[in-house]
Amino acid sequence: MMTDPDITAAVLIIGNEVLSGRTKDANLGFLGSELNKIGILVMEARVIRDDQQMIMDHVNDLRRRYDYLFTTGGIGPTHDDITSESIAKAFALPFGRNPDAVRMLSEHYDDKDLTAARLRMANTPEGVILLDNPVSKAPGFQVENVFVLPGVPVIMQAIFAGFRHRLQGGREMLSATLTCDLPEGRIAENLGHIQDRNKDVEIGSYPYIRLGKMGVSVVVRHTDQARLDSVSGEIKAMISGLGGKIF
Amino acid sequence: MMTDPDITAAVLIIGNEVLSGRTKDANLGFLGSELNKIGILVMEARVIRDDQQMIMDHVNDLRRRYDYLFTTGGIGPTHDDITSESIAKAFALPFGRNPDAVRMLSEHYDDKDLTAARLRMANTPEGVILLDNPVSKAPGFQVENVFVLPGVPVIMQAIFAGFRHRLQGGREMLSATLTCDLPEGRIAENLGHIQDRNKDVEIGSYPYIRLGKMGVSVVVRHTDQARLDSVSGEIKAMISGLGGKIF
Repeated sequence: MMTDPDITAAVLIIGNEVLSGRTKDANLGFLGSELNKIGILVMEARVIRDDQQMIMDHVNDLRRRYDYLFTTGGIGPTHDDITSESIAKAFALPFGRNPDAVRMLSEHYDDKDLTAARLRMANTPEGVILLDNPVSKAPGFQVENVFVLPGVPVIMQAIFAGFRHRLQGGREMLSATLTCDLPEGRIAENLGHIQDRNKDVEIGSYPYIRLGKMGVSVVVRHTDQARLDSVSGEIKAMISGLGGKIF
Repeated sequence: MMTDPDITAAVLIIGNEVLSGRTKDANLGFLGSELNKIGILVMEARVIRDDQQMIMDHVNDLRRRYDYLFTTGGIGPTHDDITSESIAKAFALPFGRNPDAVRMLSEHYDDKDLTAARLRMANTPEGVILLDNPVSKAPGFQVENVFVLPGVPVIMQAIFAGFRHRLQGGREMLSATLTCDLPEGRIAENLGHIQDRNKDVEIGSYPYIRLGKMGVSVVVRHTDQARLDSVSGEIKAMISGLGGKIF
């Protein structure tokens, strides 16, 4: 059901506000699709509370399971921003003021505005690679295969753009989406046969309800364009054969 | 930093399409806020691929850690819908055709439309409690403390409404949100002092960027309205004292 991924990743979203439903996460969608473009497959994501033990446990679990781990959230100036310190603990690294991070913050803030709280954003585990933040200067950082990023989407995305070229990618996963007006149950059996005959191709089926009518989007994924076209063609013919319209 | 939750839960979102960024999950936000209203705190959420071993491992891990586990996705009629069978395996229960589920589907589909593929939606682990689906009839189900729900939000929400009264809740977590035009770094130090003086109250700080300006929302949470009002009042006074406007 899936081509073996060359390179894998996980995303760890840190923040009570996402779990309480107050904030809708936008970072998983961005990272999932951007990483996909460079051939890195996000295998799982987790959303956890701002809790030191939880952060440590999940960081240590995920960084060992996958090639890359991206964390978002909890690196700002307030008391509930405990990600950086928790990551230092997870790696058993000393934690303290990073002079390069202080320099980056100084470019953005006058001395009087560089408060004790803001200087907290210059605390990192020892020996990390700082990740440039062109928006608000407070950097993210990288320790081994873990990239530690802020939760505000525009800032996270700007930092990501700065290190994206350094990630070791695999073959890009290409995809084609076929959306039709048949309910999922109408195409399910034939779609299963097509999947059986094409085990190297990932075929996903995603029902939706729009204006009270059920339809389905079929997503076909493969690293090879010719295989993608061939299997998409089979699915199109199958849907048309059942009297379905493809949008 | 948080009042001890009486009752805890996790959400397990099953579906490749959420990890690839194609689909934005809407179920965590709904469950997080609805469960919160009945005093059940979502402690973590995980998003995983449609993979039998992953589903089994995460279901078994999460159902033991928390009072409740809610899964979404992967219970439809297509080949990639493998949640129900994986959950049977996780519980080491026999898996097969559920006569009550067949009856529910028969109410919705004519005999000729009750295809083999659709009948897959009537396969469940043995001995489960079926969860009524008023929208499209194919039921969710409950095994012990695990509620197995579909991924389409309107259907998931309709099923949830049907069993919500059966959940054992705790004290409702009340919250107040104070959004102001000061950047997070300006209020961080004073906010930390307020948190230190009020350790029973959960105070979260969520920066945002709007029209190029940074601001911050402070969210105060407690089960007791009087405590909530008192700490919110302190924070309002602090923000005004720094020259901030509260919206």
